[in-house]
Amino acid sequence: MEKKIITISREFGSGGSTIGRKVAEKLGIPFYDKELVDQIAVESGFAPQYVEEHGEHSPGKSFFSYAFAHHGVPGVMNGLSTADFLWNIQCNVILQLADKGPCVIVGRNADYILKDRKDCLHTFIHADMDFRADRIVRLYGESEKSPEARLQEKDKRRRVNYQHYTGRTWGTAQNYDICLNSSAIGIDECVDIIVALAQGK
Amino acid sequence: MEKKIITISREFGSGGSTIGRKVAEKLGIPFYDKELVDQIAVESGFAPQYVEEHGEHSPGKSFFSYAFAHHGVPGVMNGLSTADFLWNIQCNVILQLADKGPCVIVGRNADYILKDRKDCLHTFIHADMDFRADRIVRLYGESEKSPEARLQEKDKRRRVNYQHYTGRTWGTAQNYDICLNSSAIGIDECVDIIVALAQGK
Repeated sequence: MEKKIITISREFGSGGSTIGRKVAEKLGIPFYDKELVDQIAVESGFAPQYVEEHGEHSPGKSFFSYAFAHHGVPGVMNGLSTADFLWNIQCNVILQLADKGPCVIVGRNADYILKDRKDCLHTFIHADMDFRADRIVRLYGESEKSPEARLQEKDKRRRVNYQHYTGRTWGTAQNYDICLNSSAIGIDECVDIIVALAQGK
Repeated sequence: MEKKIITISREFGSGGSTIGRKVAEKLGIPFYDKELVDQIAVESGFAPQYVEEHGEHSPGKSFFSYAFAHHGVPGVMNGLSTADFLWNIQCNVILQLADKGPCVIVGRNADYILKDRKDCLHTFIHADMDFRADRIVRLYGESEKSPEARLQEKDKRRRVNYQHYTGRTWGTAQNYDICLNSSAIGIDECVDIIVALAQGK
């Protein structure tokens, strides 16, 4: 069966976003990664930078962000925390995008948000630590923290966010149709496998 | 890079063993599933039925089995529990088989036992509950317990055994090079993907 919506969950630095972009190009369908952030920003009234920072990260600690972020937009959040408010918008945006037609969606718990659709291929991309560390230094530059510390922090925040909003454990194989170790298999080989599965081959 | 040893971990009823057998046939290499049990039985002095029952299941509760199983083989286990003794034999048998040459090994925590070899492709096969329930009734017949209860019990025993001997969580994507949902992707499609990866294509 042909799969129209491809969700790509990924460890930071594993190449998941790159794989998603290439899959979308090969299939000739829209690709949503940072593009999602902009849509969520428009619908929520938050700055894109704020959405990007909080959309996949740990919930909580939101009283001050609540108080300040909605300066001038009183009552919009109906008493929800900033994180829960953003989560609701994120769910709506992702459900609407999926309804519009075939696409690739990276991150933002889309595997869970779209779990009831039968036309999705849910994928998870992970990779060995040294592959990811090398990759983030090349792509995102050096930082005061070691690449390993940056990876662990980012993974932890995604894991906590996923657990909080889905009740599932991040990276559990059973949540996905296919999980791939991009450092063992290769970025382009991952792309080819996902494209073939999406086409029902 | 061509991968010589394929390990297949699997949920009960997911078709993992069938997939492994077909992969081995296509690659023209030996297949070890129940065959492993016989080798472990020979090396341990236990009956094959006993090895099969305990080789992938929960450790513990072994005093009586210890006392009875080794009637006539005093001192062989060097004070280890039956489960730990079997685990040691299992590790040795799997390491020796991998040394002998290319092969497919199903279950028995081979992914962990062979984790330090670079020429392995570690796979995990899972499937939706209704697919597995239907499959075990067709393959293994009816039972007093519901198929769902049989699946849950078997999964739990494998999970506890894996956790105990490896310190890892069973079914975590990061432990494998590729994880596949056989009910979503199809048994034969899983075979083709694994064969292509093993051949380095």
